[in-house]
Amino acid sequence: MESIAVSALGYGAATLTTLSLFPQAVKTVRSGDTSAISLRMYGLFTLGILAWAAYGLLKADGPVIAANLITLVPATVVLERKLRALLDGRERRGGGPRGRG
Amino acid sequence: MESIAVSALGYGAATLTTLSLFPQAVKTVRSGDTSAISLRMYGLFTLGILAWAAYGLLKADGPVIAANLITLVPATVVLERKLRALLDGRERRGGGPRGRG
Repeated sequence: MESIAVSALGYGAATLTTLSLFPQAVKTVRSGDTSAISLRMYGLFTLGILAWAAYGLLKADGPVIAANLITLVPATVVLERKLRALLDGRERRGGGPRGRG
Repeated sequence: MESIAVSALGYGAATLTTLSLFPQAVKTVRSGDTSAISLRMYGLFTLGILAWAAYGLLKADGPVIAANLITLVPATVVLERKLRALLDGRERRGGGPRGRG
């Protein structure tokens, strides 16, 4: 049985987890420092969020769709910064930063 | 329509996001260092995971239940370490660690 209360709980959960993940993206974009970000873990996480969004769409589950489509934005931004730092040679895989600029 | 493929996608998504969140808990427990953890963000996140687990139970959604009940374990462990560090006076709110031990 679908009720308004259950939907409200789902959207509340979506708001909490989505809000809690934004500050990392803001910090990464502001500082430009991705040395403390694990490529493997952030890659797994981003792929997982994409899979959750697809699952939500297939189940027509509003809170799951909303939470994961929105979370996909900061997750992709952080992953893109991390990949760019690695490709530019500013960081080595598994190591810290070599230096800025 | 519920199909095996949709369930498999959901459990795949659950595995990816759950796995990606464990290393933080392992690192925190091993190092005992919670100075880089934001109490507010981790508190919001843990509360959100609890709400998602309740939502999953009410919707009888297997992947949502599994992902969030399992994620609740490392999230609670990290939050407990952070709170203990603050209560023991090893860290100040909003600041870094004062020192170890």
